[in-house]
Amino acid sequence: MKTLWQHCHVATMASGKYSIIEDAAMVTADSLIEWIGPRSQVPSADYAQVHDLQGAWVTPGLIDCHTHTVFGGNRSGEFEQRLQGVSYAEIAAQGGGIASTVRATRAASEDELFASAEKRLRSLLRDGVTTVEIKSGYGLDLVNERKMLRVARRLGEALPVSVRATCLAAHALPPEYKDRADDYIEHICSEMLPALAAQGLVDAVDAFCEYLAFSPAQVERVFKVAQQLGLPVKLHAEQLSSLHGSSLAARYHALSADHLEFMTEADAIAMAAAGTVAVLLPGAFYFLRETQLPPMEALRKHGVKIAIASDLNPGTSPALSVRLMLNMACTLFRMTPEEALAGATQHAATALGMGDTHGSLEVGKVADFVAWQIDRPADLAYWLGGELDKRVVRHGVDVTV
Amino acid sequence: MKTLWQHCHVATMASGKYSIIEDAAMVTADSLIEWIGPRSQVPSADYAQVHDLQGAWVTPGLIDCHTHTVFGGNRSGEFEQRLQGVSYAEIAAQGGGIASTVRATRAASEDELFASAEKRLRSLLRDGVTTVEIKSGYGLDLVNERKMLRVARRLGEALPVSVRATCLAAHALPPEYKDRADDYIEHICSEMLPALAAQGLVDAVDAFCEYLAFSPAQVERVFKVAQQLGLPVKLHAEQLSSLHGSSLAARYHALSADHLEFMTEADAIAMAAAGTVAVLLPGAFYFLRETQLPPMEALRKHGVKIAIASDLNPGTSPALSVRLMLNMACTLFRMTPEEALAGATQHAATALGMGDTHGSLEVGKVADFVAWQIDRPADLAYWLGGELDKRVVRHGVDVTV
Ligand SMILES: [Zn+2]
Ligand SMILES: [Zn+2]
Repeated sequence: MKTLWQHCHVATMASGKYSIIEDAAMVTADSLIEWIGPRSQVPSADYAQVHDLQGAWVTPGLIDCHTHTVFGGNRSGEFEQRLQGVSYAEIAAQGGGIASTVRATRAASEDELFASAEKRLRSLLRDGVTTVEIKSGYGLDLVNERKMLRVARRLGEALPVSVRATCLAAHALPPEYKDRADDYIEHICSEMLPALAAQGLVDAVDAFCEYLAFSPAQVERVFKVAQQLGLPVKLHAEQLSSLHGSSLAARYHALSADHLEFMTEADAIAMAAAGTVAVLLPGAFYFLRETQLPPMEALRKHGVKIAIASDLNPGTSPALSVRLMLNMACTLFRMTPEEALAGATQHAATALGMGDTHGSLEVGKVADFVAWQIDRPADLAYWLGGELDKRVVRHGVDVTV
Repeated sequence: MKTLWQHCHVATMASGKYSIIEDAAMVTADSLIEWIGPRSQVPSADYAQVHDLQGAWVTPGLIDCHTHTVFGGNRSGEFEQRLQGVSYAEIAAQGGGIASTVRATRAASEDELFASAEKRLRSLLRDGVTTVEIKSGYGLDLVNERKMLRVARRLGEALPVSVRATCLAAHALPPEYKDRADDYIEHICSEMLPALAAQGLVDAVDAFCEYLAFSPAQVERVFKVAQQLGLPVKLHAEQLSSLHGSSLAARYHALSADHLEFMTEADAIAMAAAGTVAVLLPGAFYFLRETQLPPMEALRKHGVKIAIASDLNPGTSPALSVRLMLNMACTLFRMTPEEALAGATQHAATALGMGDTHGSLEVGKVADFVAWQIDRPADLAYWLGGELDKRVVRHGVDVTV
């Protein structure tokens, strides 16, 4: 079934640039883009449907390539305590921080996790997201990591969004492995990852490489097993210190290395050579009031592809909008609106291993797009919060969330 | 007609504190709150309607007490240029900055201004706002200031929101008065304000006291005329430098002084004595990457009431959500979520001269409230952007936006 969409301008985001077509038209055939170009050149055909986009600016559907959407509880109470002057140390002594999210996630049933995650995911979708990555990492044992990944899969079935599930078992040390990090890594490698992969619950494997999480050597053990299982890897790296996790990630041809405030130019060179995407997370930078900026010049100079994501999580980035992240990427990291939009479309797709099918509006790609009632593409990064009038199309079909 | 609302918790915000009632109920009679208290003590009566709020947290409707919602065009193109490395000086030389908004606002018809402002206002309303202040200040002559104020009035008639219209003719120097600021002030005082007030278009009078706008002496001339007309005053003060505009505002018993990053402790003492509310605008602070924080300790020490607002405007705060401003007040200004929420309810009402009728959920006040599906009131300041499930009630009646 062929559908014609017209009376719009398109920022196709081909090659990570606006690549604008003014007064454009698009032909979709079922879920794919069959033709796109100036309206004056639309191929004549017997279109089953013709949609007037009323002068909208059309962009690819937004892709949020780094989220922890599934979790039990939230940490607004802790947020409030900190602002009332309670120290991190006191909060940790009360069992706060990530430990409290692990407890709440373990205590929640699969249905409870689904219900709370669904609300958050709907918020992202209402703001134009059509593809989202969701990580595990608050279960930290086989049963609970499986529960989280099953919820991720169910979200993709229940809502109009493509979900990529990432196993982040190596997110933090579970309490039962206190002072035995190597044993937990061994458990991940020998039991958890093979079992979760066998059940088809894992699209990629991630880890948190940081002095307060896992060492590069420990991460490498996880990566080796992922490689044996045929799964691509990603890495939380250089958020708080420079351990060169991003270079390690590049060595394993990781899809992405994420955070990266403390990465070096040498890391950028390694990532560029490996095609590893730099996923920047301005919401966490903002929420934690960080001051060390990611090395934008080194990333640009060496041609590292830069993605932007919400990092939606209860502790460091309770962010429910990718558009807000575009603004923060511009305001805080001094990215241009075009770079930021590429970071939530083409480069985000690449960071999920979907760069050939998603992320830009080109012939043969999936017809996931948003028709925004805005003056120009920069509006997507300019407005702060709130909602913009829009029409969201996924797989060639209008969706309502 | 009496309506019972129950199965909820309430943060009444009485006296600017959470003032929580758990397992609460509320009785509204037409548009007013007739009773509020623990559900176990609900007066028995023949309620025309009984609403189950399903465990929601109820707060007063949010009040955005400082916005420039009505304007022509937007400045996303300028935002993009700056991030591409174009200097402020070059943008000004191209006719950018506030001058471009004045041109676009003058060129727009009243209906065009209404249509664009309506979209922005709907975004604020969808996020829980029930009262909003809207300033003129991009017309800068009688015809165009009147046009802006008429749009503000029409917005209040067309949408489910109470609008307060503020005349900000003394916002910037119009091009036709170049180098003749005193003459423009004279025109405001002798022609514009009396005419606009006579037409019932003005609820308060505001001015921009800054070295790049108007001097304290010029502001004082405007304030004197406002006083003669029986209109309360407000002031944009101490945003970029310390001219003690906030003390001047206090001397004229201003409803509020706004921005205030550079105010001194002496200003705080004067404001506290006069009951002038400090309206902080974290969106502009964020968007302009300011580093000078408002003097939170002095404001708290002297008991100045603090409000938080969006400052929605095209140049320095294109903010479409008050909830995001609550987060920025906490994250950037280190306010507590309770202080921030008071700043968008009770203290915002006071900043609009509506503190006796709006801003808290107490017997006799207007029944404007939001029932939020959240875990605790701090959630309103915790989540970053996006949308929270909610039910908005204004004048005792459900509203959909
Ligand atoms: Zn993360
Ligand atoms: Zn303002």
